[in-house]
Amino acid sequence: MRIGVLTSGGDCPGLNAVIRSVVHRAVADHGDEVIGFRDGWKGLLECDYLKLDLDAVGGILARGGTILGSSRVQPSHLRDGVERAKGHVAELGLDAIIPIGGEGTLKAARLMSDAGLPIVGVPKTIDNDIAVTDVTFGFDTAVGVATEALDRLKTTAESHQRVLVVEVMGRHTGWIALHSGMAAGAHAIVVPERPFDIEELARRVGERFEAGKRFAIVVAAEGAKPAPGSMAFDEGGKDIYGHERFAGIARQLSIELEQRLGKEARPVILGHVQRGGTPTAYDRVLATRFGWHAVEAVHRGEFGHMTALRGTDIVMVPLAEAVETLKTVPEERYAEAECVL
Amino acid sequence: MRIGVLTSGGDCPGLNAVIRSVVHRAVADHGDEVIGFRDGWKGLLECDYLKLDLDAVGGILARGGTILGSSRVQPSHLRDGVERAKGHVAELGLDAIIPIGGEGTLKAARLMSDAGLPIVGVPKTIDNDIAVTDVTFGFDTAVGVATEALDRLKTTAESHQRVLVVEVMGRHTGWIALHSGMAAGAHAIVVPERPFDIEELARRVGERFEAGKRFAIVVAAEGAKPAPGSMAFDEGGKDIYGHERFAGIARQLSIELEQRLGKEARPVILGHVQRGGTPTAYDRVLATRFGWHAVEAVHRGEFGHMTALRGTDIVMVPLAEAVETLKTVPEERYAEAECVL
Amino acid sequence: MRIGVLTSGGDCPGLNAVIRSVVHRAVADHGDEVIGFRDGWKGLLECDYLKLDLDAVGGILARGGTILGSSRVQPSHLRDGVERAKGHVAELGLDAIIPIGGEGTLKAARLMSDAGLPIVGVPKTIDNDIAVTDVTFGFDTAVGVATEALDRLKTTAESHQRVLVVEVMGRHTGWIALHSGMAAGAHAIVVPERPFDIEELARRVGERFEAGKRFAIVVAAEGAKPAPGSMAFDEGGKDIYGHERFAGIARQLSIELEQRLGKEARPVILGHVQRGGTPTAYDRVLATRFGWHAVEAVHRGEFGHMTALRGTDIVMVPLAEAVETLKTVPEERYAEAECVL
Amino acid sequence: MRIGVLTSGGDCPGLNAVIRSVVHRAVADHGDEVIGFRDGWKGLLECDYLKLDLDAVGGILARGGTILGSSRVQPSHLRDGVERAKGHVAELGLDAIIPIGGEGTLKAARLMSDAGLPIVGVPKTIDNDIAVTDVTFGFDTAVGVATEALDRLKTTAESHQRVLVVEVMGRHTGWIALHSGMAAGAHAIVVPERPFDIEELARRVGERFEAGKRFAIVVAAEGAKPAPGSMAFDEGGKDIYGHERFAGIARQLSIELEQRLGKEARPVILGHVQRGGTPTAYDRVLATRFGWHAVEAVHRGEFGHMTALRGTDIVMVPLAEAVETLKTVPEERYAEAECVL
Repeated sequence: MRIGVLTSGGDCPGLNAVIRSVVHRAVADHGDEVIGFRDGWKGLLECDYLKLDLDAVGGILARGGTILGSSRVQPSHLRDGVERAKGHVAELGLDAIIPIGGEGTLKAARLMSDAGLPIVGVPKTIDNDIAVTDVTFGFDTAVGVATEALDRLKTTAESHQRVLVVEVMGRHTGWIALHSGMAAGAHAIVVPERPFDIEELARRVGERFEAGKRFAIVVAAEGAKPAPGSMAFDEGGKDIYGHERFAGIARQLSIELEQRLGKEARPVILGHVQRGGTPTAYDRVLATRFGWHAVEAVHRGEFGHMTALRGTDIVMVPLAEAVETLKTVPEERYAEAECVL
Repeated sequence: MRIGVLTSGGDCPGLNAVIRSVVHRAVADHGDEVIGFRDGWKGLLECDYLKLDLDAVGGILARGGTILGSSRVQPSHLRDGVERAKGHVAELGLDAIIPIGGEGTLKAARLMSDAGLPIVGVPKTIDNDIAVTDVTFGFDTAVGVATEALDRLKTTAESHQRVLVVEVMGRHTGWIALHSGMAAGAHAIVVPERPFDIEELARRVGERFEAGKRFAIVVAAEGAKPAPGSMAFDEGGKDIYGHERFAGIARQLSIELEQRLGKEARPVILGHVQRGGTPTAYDRVLATRFGWHAVEAVHRGEFGHMTALRGTDIVMVPLAEAVETLKTVPEERYAEAECVL
Repeated sequence: MRIGVLTSGGDCPGLNAVIRSVVHRAVADHGDEVIGFRDGWKGLLECDYLKLDLDAVGGILARGGTILGSSRVQPSHLRDGVERAKGHVAELGLDAIIPIGGEGTLKAARLMSDAGLPIVGVPKTIDNDIAVTDVTFGFDTAVGVATEALDRLKTTAESHQRVLVVEVMGRHTGWIALHSGMAAGAHAIVVPERPFDIEELARRVGERFEAGKRFAIVVAAEGAKPAPGSMAFDEGGKDIYGHERFAGIARQLSIELEQRLGKEARPVILGHVQRGGTPTAYDRVLATRFGWHAVEAVHRGEFGHMTALRGTDIVMVPLAEAVETLKTVPEERYAEAECVL
Repeated sequence: MRIGVLTSGGDCPGLNAVIRSVVHRAVADHGDEVIGFRDGWKGLLECDYLKLDLDAVGGILARGGTILGSSRVQPSHLRDGVERAKGHVAELGLDAIIPIGGEGTLKAARLMSDAGLPIVGVPKTIDNDIAVTDVTFGFDTAVGVATEALDRLKTTAESHQRVLVVEVMGRHTGWIALHSGMAAGAHAIVVPERPFDIEELARRVGERFEAGKRFAIVVAAEGAKPAPGSMAFDEGGKDIYGHERFAGIARQLSIELEQRLGKEARPVILGHVQRGGTPTAYDRVLATRFGWHAVEAVHRGEFGHMTALRGTDIVMVPLAEAVETLKTVPEERYAEAECVL
């Protein structure tokens, strides 16, 4: 068989592990040919690709990033390109395409699949917000990086007798905030799923200081929002250059908490460091399994599906299901963390 | 309520996280009292304990080891002690005991439970071989440590043009070998579940060198066994001091491979480093959830059960089920790793 | 003898290692008594202290922060307090005080020493900018944390085809920027010692893209300044809330580079994570040696001095010398890094 | 100019960083040509080399191992090859050779230099035992890996109430043992420089247990030797297969201590993991500086020298000096560690 693979969307630790796994399984075990499209869907639309043999994937298992490059693509652009894509698939004699990507990519994958292309998707997001899989690779690495940072920040917060408000990734869901906050023993966690009350947050942090503690760590998912009207800055905001991306919940919260509590509060924005670099062992294993099972699905002709983790098993789920809803943090998980507002 | 907690068996990253979580949930949320028995069952039998309040568990979440100490206890000794234990439980006015431990501990927990003590167990093993839970805490840390070591060893093996045979933990099951081997891209993995053929192993490693590669990494679970008669040293063996613990599969394999292939082969035994130290974020979250749910089970009166992970949920399973069978690596996982013999 | 020890100023990995070393050497070897003042000079002025025996320093070697707490103190406040301090020293029967701190602390130490107090200082700063010692502990950890972040950011920058401008600590000197930038292979480094030309920076980064590279990493010390007039934002700036601390060189540079190059550029501010948490082995050894030699100096009566590293030796240098000049990055080091502007 | 570079001897983190630095400085700044000989001196003798341009060294700065390969070579073999080497140097039009290696390599370099070849050496050893430089790259990484392992082992030793005897690298000198032991707070350290008395060691460890501590960590350099006659096993020994490499000081010590103290004692041999993998930031900076200065020395015609660190400066020292004596741990360093026997 002839299989094309591509990676699309933001960086995510484990992408290379999937690519390597696809090539190992397909080339070494099935005798297939594999090509990789450059820079995501763009490579498919522009027929820009390279051959992926065993040597091409040597030494990439533990490396962050993607040897294929990535890009974000507009859905409308993609829609217009379906015919072109089909042409290239025919031209190249491809029996299957394995796109590896997040929500946008999987929607695109469904579009392509509905248009008749033989697609087997592999979900990817550090945010862990894809509904039909227990976990996505990249998430464990992101949580690990955030937790290690929180571990370090605790001693500094304590030495300086401060509140630190640490912003972690998670625009729509609080998974990284929840897990890293639990792992590091944060004193409060705010998440996008549940608008928080700033009074309540200040009260909780304040009680800690009243009880004689000398510091507090608040973990804020970047998409966390105050309950309407509860906070002066709840409109979001732009920085001095008018760039929205420089404002953020951690800065707003640290100002609010400092004013309300009379304690020094500082924001720390972990940023891109959460999404790059060497994947954890967990993510490498999951990514490798996804790649392997994607190739098996291709050989079974199980198109229009994507790989998913359920318990300890890798299963195939229809792409249609995958993109229907976002996997948000369920209510019952808040109580376990003891400190989600 | 009044709850006693104890940790038993070998060291395992996450023990302190469970203890902390039990105390946080019970004391802070339910207003319970918690005491900790020292050195496992021994503390219960000898009524040796300390009070666990919130301060007592401050700062231990990320710390390896167990603040309660641990010990291994003979089942027979424990059987004789059941009445004594019951006496102490009555004396101390305990409503529940939460033992945290591995297979042996859970068997002891069942014994105590059958004898009428109010027990809620928390499973613990870096080996991941407890059947009724998807994963146990400690496993992810062990795999992480082994994988990081394998990552380092690869460059050395390559520079020195050698075979390295790396022995990882796993007396009865190959989970650590499988996951760390997959994560690090090992070239062969041998596990206890499937006796291996030394000829076949030598052939595979040899083919790698013939194909121009300059090194090979073999991961061996400590309990891996050659197929009967396939290897000169398959009887195991003792070292010069007559201590069985100094022999081992990695040494035997490196000698066999060196002789058969004419390539330098060296054993590396990772040993205890896999079971100590700071737990990964994954293990801290899992341990915290186990502790939280154990307290909830106590409050529901759901005794004779233990916590378990199923998919993304924590559930309670009867202790009787937990210790019936060992969770071995299923056949279908070998293929995914591409290199299990 | 009776020795008082205190930690002052910002958090710095290795503080606990010094405290432990002082106690081990003084108590275990010399039979001295050691007390620790709480929260830096404040503890001395308010006679707030605790006894430090061997148990008090158990398990702290690898822990970030300081078990004694820290605070920043105004020099004027300290000047007024000299007599009070002398009174407390007499009252407590102290033979020596060992303050561990940065530039401000060492200046205070000199003041106290000039006033007749028996002082032996230990220099501390992650910034590495104290002139009379080759290195200060904390610096290696800060560089390590920054380098690990840069390693991760590289794959993300590459996948996203972006410029990342990474702000590291260093208000007055570029040591952390230089070392982490060299260690991670940054493509440009800007430091406070040498005002940079924004045109030149944009040209260099631009050339990289023209040569077909897909990303660039710029490391900026927080105190780096553009040459006068070279940049729209060279006045620094405040954020929407009027807080100066939220503006910063990384944000300014990313805006300038994005506008000049037409490539996406993003700021990453590593922040406090560089100054907390477990110290590296290097810093633990250096801190331990400083503590040991400080006690020896006390026993030799070598007051008014501080410990310093010269080559592989620990020597004592007069406090007067220590605070005279800042140790800036010398010109000849720029060339080695290949990319300092 | 035309420069040849080679790496020789055992693996050492930072080798690739030197190669990269040589190429960057020589090619990008001086417009030189650089070639790399494969597998150390063997590549020179057999004229086996590859061109090293900027692309060839892309992405290798943080990677362990050496892209050039390495080998150990017999001095006699090398002596016979001098004329051949000279022939190849002439043939290839080389203006200089930069060998990167340890004691053996530097001796070979001196031989070649004495024979008239234009040599600038770069010292390399994780053991840190080269006399004329304060530090060699690779050492910091080795110490870091050993320290991290010791950190982990402490919690296990404590949970299991054991003595752990941890064998670290250092056949002739105790630098790694000293630094990792100090960094991790080991309770006893034995080094090759000072034959130890087993009675004394047992007494010290025993006193710890008598004082109520529940564990002890002994760090043993692999070359540590008991004082003559003090230990049953002081002859060294072979394992059941007659391989000397499987015996070792850690095993001998754990048996002796277990018998003398009646406490469980276990050996842990860290092994090759200390010499591979990603170098620390410290080692990357040092390696980069060595490479840069080696190229400068070539351009100044300063042959017969090697790079060395003195304080914070890189200086050139004659190869003749470099190999005269081993840098052993000086007596005064033992006292600082508090626990060297």
